[in-house]
Amino acid sequence: MRGDIIVQKYGGTSVANVERIMHVAERVVKTKKNGYKVVVVVSALGDTTDELIALANRITDEPPERELDMLMATGEQVSSALLAMAIQKIGEEAISFTGAQVGIMTDRAHTKARIQGVDAKRILKELEKDRIVIVAGFQGITEDQEITTLGRGGSNITAVALAAVLKAQECEMNTDVDGVYTADPRIVKDARKIDQISYEEMLEMASSGAQVLQARSIEAASKFGVRIHVRGTFHETEGTIISKEVRAMENVLVSGITLTKNEAKVTVCDVPDKPGSAAKIFEMLGEANINVDMIIQNVSRTGATDVSFTVPRDELAKTLKVANKVSGEIGAHGVTYDEEMAKVSAIGIGMRSHSGVAATMFKTLADEGINIDMISTSEIKISCVIKKTNGEKAVKALHKAFDLGKKS
Amino acid sequence: MRGDIIVQKYGGTSVANVERIMHVAERVVKTKKNGYKVVVVVSALGDTTDELIALANRITDEPPERELDMLMATGEQVSSALLAMAIQKIGEEAISFTGAQVGIMTDRAHTKARIQGVDAKRILKELEKDRIVIVAGFQGITEDQEITTLGRGGSNITAVALAAVLKAQECEMNTDVDGVYTADPRIVKDARKIDQISYEEMLEMASSGAQVLQARSIEAASKFGVRIHVRGTFHETEGTIISKEVRAMENVLVSGITLTKNEAKVTVCDVPDKPGSAAKIFEMLGEANINVDMIIQNVSRTGATDVSFTVPRDELAKTLKVANKVSGEIGAHGVTYDEEMAKVSAIGIGMRSHSGVAATMFKTLADEGINIDMISTSEIKISCVIKKTNGEKAVKALHKAFDLGKKS
Repeated sequence: MRGDIIVQKYGGTSVANVERIMHVAERVVKTKKNGYKVVVVVSALGDTTDELIALANRITDEPPERELDMLMATGEQVSSALLAMAIQKIGEEAISFTGAQVGIMTDRAHTKARIQGVDAKRILKELEKDRIVIVAGFQGITEDQEITTLGRGGSNITAVALAAVLKAQECEMNTDVDGVYTADPRIVKDARKIDQISYEEMLEMASSGAQVLQARSIEAASKFGVRIHVRGTFHETEGTIISKEVRAMENVLVSGITLTKNEAKVTVCDVPDKPGSAAKIFEMLGEANINVDMIIQNVSRTGATDVSFTVPRDELAKTLKVANKVSGEIGAHGVTYDEEMAKVSAIGIGMRSHSGVAATMFKTLADEGINIDMISTSEIKISCVIKKTNGEKAVKALHKAFDLGKKS
Repeated sequence: MRGDIIVQKYGGTSVANVERIMHVAERVVKTKKNGYKVVVVVSALGDTTDELIALANRITDEPPERELDMLMATGEQVSSALLAMAIQKIGEEAISFTGAQVGIMTDRAHTKARIQGVDAKRILKELEKDRIVIVAGFQGITEDQEITTLGRGGSNITAVALAAVLKAQECEMNTDVDGVYTADPRIVKDARKIDQISYEEMLEMASSGAQVLQARSIEAASKFGVRIHVRGTFHETEGTIISKEVRAMENVLVSGITLTKNEAKVTVCDVPDKPGSAAKIFEMLGEANINVDMIIQNVSRTGATDVSFTVPRDELAKTLKVANKVSGEIGAHGVTYDEEMAKVSAIGIGMRSHSGVAATMFKTLADEGINIDMISTSEIKISCVIKKTNGEKAVKALHKAFDLGKKS
């Protein structure tokens, strides 16, 4: 048991410039002075990764992924080295490493590699020398010594993997917000910071619009039992702890309300009720790498039925091309779409054992005069697709209906 | 024997932007189409290295050298990946590597590491697959997997080391000038491009002001018998071949005239003629890391003598501080200096076997009314320190006196 290790991850906005790097250095040193061994994972400075990709795109429309990884991996190497300098400037010993140097082994899937193992020896050796260890996030190496990157949210994955293998007490995700909220505070004025939330709820919130953490890193944390602490780089307060189910006594039905605004709804009309028709649609969408979210198909009473689904709005054009093609092939009657949709979701482990959440949700939206286009449910989530113009009104009403606001 | 390999090095100005990278890619592909296996060594884009150092200096006045190496090594990784993309865009297969990935092993002297060995296996494997191999210059790795950089001119050293271990036919140094000239063409209008020059002459020219190549990479090339071809990235013509002594039949006395303009002359006056007095001066200058070039001490006839030496002008202030201190300690009579000096040199292997070069040189300068302050000679070089204002006049006169201009 090495309960005295803390892994801290700092995102790109947290190290966007020299002043912020100095601030992060001070936070790291403070944690060390509080008696912890600290391992820091950093993202690239500000928009560096996007800038590097833009540079590659000026050379070629389709940069080869192996070379893109060589290029992008430099971003985190730069920020790691600078943070090590900043910490040493304050007077603590620090040493930075690339993913390769600390043995973050991945598969060969360039630009979206998966971590297969971490060899913690080098990190533990440096921690024993009383040094702060800084690891370049987002990157790893294959057994052939090829540099890989881990895709979106890759630095979070690096942090969770290190926390798991080091048996860290906590994996801090330092970001530009100070925790996870019951709803987006920009929409709901009295949204409350959630102190504790389960992996499952956080997972549903992440896939329903809460931008704090990607589903992938929450899944990994859940798998390895890594306790996550989402907190603000520029806040001194405690943030939100994500861990196993913890709140039986609190009796909370709904933990949060999320909203995604960039949904497009597509309907393939009058799909013949033959085995394999619907499968064909989603097979072709899958081949085109289109991210289908909700899928609705009602019972057929006329030998044909409408099949509706939602996709991110920026994938609509591509989707319509595929959908029109497949509509012809399966003998459906064309495609309609609405690109101005939003998805509002209520999430809470309490739903599992309490009925009535769905009823409250639908009644609240009805009372506000908001029409529900599509409904989808999971064990701990209910999502409704509505007109985008109603999105914020729906979040406010639901936040109030489930009594999530600050207690006065 | 793998006589069909060519190593091409491109400096920072050659890959300063996307357009130039595309140009370099085309040159590389052309060489491959001419039947060669091509290994390319690249420097960082334009001023990247200086920009990274400036960033580090905004964090700390004395960046730790290990972290500086982590930081700087990213520059060449970026340019390598971009060049690989550019070559693939044109339709040839290419793959980029960091120094670590191709086994460029160095000692542990961060920011000025020396290459200790290169494991060419990976490169040869890729060349056999008919790929163009791109290697990030300027960097290596220690046996502990620490990233190092090779100091000034490091990419040239990388190129020479690879050419040596790959037994390449030639190591092309592509730069912004199209070869080595008999004198600086900005000063001497009819300066002639030298077709062939020996390592020794090039070494003397490099240390006497010709900026094309650092002495260090010429020494390495000489040691391993690597044939160097200095040529212009943006020129199609042949450049200058640097190899073993080659010109016995040509009977050239002097190969080139060089000029360094930023010399300062310092004299410690009336140094007592006791053993160890002069040694003390240069011992202390050495400890202060001052780069002393020429040293002149004449015979003492009065029990004391003047000791003069030259230093780069930007080290004058530091030098005077040390010199004044040591002057007091050894009982000399103070320090005088002149910061407006230049050094003009005539270099040529022919001097070895022919007398009269010195006489021609001194007479030429005298005829121009140029006073010689200090003289220093080596087997194949004569250098004279003169007033800086006379520098260009001296170069022109000597270039003419030794008949180095274009033959009409």
